[in-house]
Amino acid sequence: MHLQDLQDLYVEELRDIYSAEKQLVKALPKMAKKAMHDDLKQAFADHLEETKGHVERLEQIFEKLGKRAGGKTCKAMQGLVEEGKETMEEDAEPEVMDAALIAAGQRVEHYEIAAYGTVRTYAKLLGDTQAAKLLQSTLDEEGAADEKLTKLAESAINVEAGTEQHA
Amino acid sequence: MHLQDLQDLYVEELRDIYSAEKQLVKALPKMAKKAMHDDLKQAFADHLEETKGHVERLEQIFEKLGKRAGGKTCKAMQGLVEEGKETMEEDAEPEVMDAALIAAGQRVEHYEIAAYGTVRTYAKLLGDTQAAKLLQSTLDEEGAADEKLTKLAESAINVEAGTEQHA
Repeated sequence: MHLQDLQDLYVEELRDIYSAEKQLVKALPKMAKKAMHDDLKQAFADHLEETKGHVERLEQIFEKLGKRAGGKTCKAMQGLVEEGKETMEEDAEPEVMDAALIAAGQRVEHYEIAAYGTVRTYAKLLGDTQAAKLLQSTLDEEGAADEKLTKLAESAINVEAGTEQHA
Repeated sequence: MHLQDLQDLYVEELRDIYSAEKQLVKALPKMAKKAMHDDLKQAFADHLEETKGHVERLEQIFEKLGKRAGGKTCKAMQGLVEEGKETMEEDAEPEVMDAALIAAGQRVEHYEIAAYGTVRTYAKLLGDTQAAKLLQSTLDEEGAADEKLTKLAESAINVEAGTEQHA
């Protein structure tokens, strides 16, 4: 496919993030299962529900554009999921595993923040106010999910993992 | 290797980002070459020099820790680089390619922002003030690189690409 203009690139980028979200819907339950702390389990479970909503928002945008949502595989999210899988296979104390899961989750959130920031800007430039609003809502939720993970990292989890070394 | 405490996880995470930076040193010259706008070429070239400095800072930290820097491959950066390669192989108008390169660059910066945020927090929790300072310096440069790309995206490049559709 020839990318003639920003509209073409916008659709390509939307397909990339759509693939990313679909991959994440499969990965998040595994992360929730692996987490030890209830707060972290809950954070991943809550974000799974949000992620399902993000998929639906993207499907709304594709429908309005009259374009197919599928057909692209987000290689970056494949790498992030692969890295997360490696993390979950590590032999680690439960507190340390929780800290590692938070780190993996924040990498994923930041990928999405970058990707949604891009398509939200494109939607604005292209004058698609409705899509820009939907994408901004998702972007806000990704930002909030990242902040929640930061708080979890700064509180009990890392401190417990940190004190292990003095045991 | 058994991850017993936060110190072990810290070293693991440092190795992940070290691998990511080394991969980026190879990828950035290709992105600079592919870019059309001089400002974007320069932004990638400048960030290449910064990235080499980030590798050196990590090597300083490993030396002080008495740990080997290598031995881990950052799968997420492999995915990001693979995705960037796919982007560069797209058949696109030069202005659209520049916008796509910016989008790819911002995904990479955000990955690094997440990763450095994590290790900077660990360094602080572990009381390694010197490392925390070095990691914060890199984190600031990654943030500045991302902002520079946002400005480039918001200015000439996307506008030109956006107007193509009305041609």
